[in-house]
Amino acid sequence: MNSDDPLLLRGFQEGYRWEGVNRMPYKEDTTAPFRAISRQVLFAEEKLGCELRYFEMAPDGHSTLERHEHMHAVMILRGHGRCLLGEEVRTVRPFDLVTIPSWTWHQFRADASETMGFLCMVNADRDKPQLPSEADLAELRAIPVVARFLSDDPVTATGGG
Amino acid sequence: MNSDDPLLLRGFQEGYRWEGVNRMPYKEDTTAPFRAISRQVLFAEEKLGCELRYFEMAPDGHSTLERHEHMHAVMILRGHGRCLLGEEVRTVRPFDLVTIPSWTWHQFRADASETMGFLCMVNADRDKPQLPSEADLAELRAIPVVARFLSDDPVTATGGG
Repeated sequence: MNSDDPLLLRGFQEGYRWEGVNRMPYKEDTTAPFRAISRQVLFAEEKLGCELRYFEMAPDGHSTLERHEHMHAVMILRGHGRCLLGEEVRTVRPFDLVTIPSWTWHQFRADASETMGFLCMVNADRDKPQLPSEADLAELRAIPVVARFLSDDPVTATGGG
Repeated sequence: MNSDDPLLLRGFQEGYRWEGVNRMPYKEDTTAPFRAISRQVLFAEEKLGCELRYFEMAPDGHSTLERHEHMHAVMILRGHGRCLLGEEVRTVRPFDLVTIPSWTWHQFRADASETMGFLCMVNADRDKPQLPSEADLAELRAIPVVARFLSDDPVTATGGG
């Protein structure tokens, strides 16, 4: 890569797309439950040691309920929604920052009326997400606010994979 | 850090500030030339291996003209301006992505009428920036478009620090 590379500047385009960036499926693993969510990898150069991705959910879309050893550093870029963070549910809006510590159950859900997109920074070297077992889900559903959050989507609320 | 930590969600606030984030001087090194620019460190957890910072320039403000071994991954967050990228000057607008490769001279300048802010992702382990020597500046000024860019600010155009 050198300074003559036209892709050193990748313009922001209509519909939250970027020049030279492909919109991809959210995950390769299609057994994990999620809905109406896409992924664009904005930066993933090896030298950075980390990656910056943009995830976007259509209204009512959601990411997978999961946890892992690696942490996430998130900035909401557009829209409003809610985020499960361990035993808490928080509402989020543009430019809010969300820290997801190791082994914390988390899930993002877009409001019913609005597309929601967020940036997610992660270490390039990271472990695979873990899905909740039936026991994990029972434990999460024992927390009323989490139960309500999860019950917005029957698929996620009744199965872990 | 656990999921009860209220700072897992840090709300976006008036004036491009974030809950629990200090606005700091742009650099500790005050010998480097820059103008009307501040720094907020949004994420710097050791586990991430990288940092996400938000830099903001008042109208007509600019970052230091510099280069280094480490690369920068930038997303413009607000406002319009221009960016020197090696031997090129590019205009930038919100959500554009800018990649700054190793050893590429670079500088950001806000338009005269507008505050400009950008996110910058870097590896946590990085080298110190190098300022241009008189010879470097002469070489840069030999490129007409770069000369015009640098001459917008007499301080930067006539001295390297």
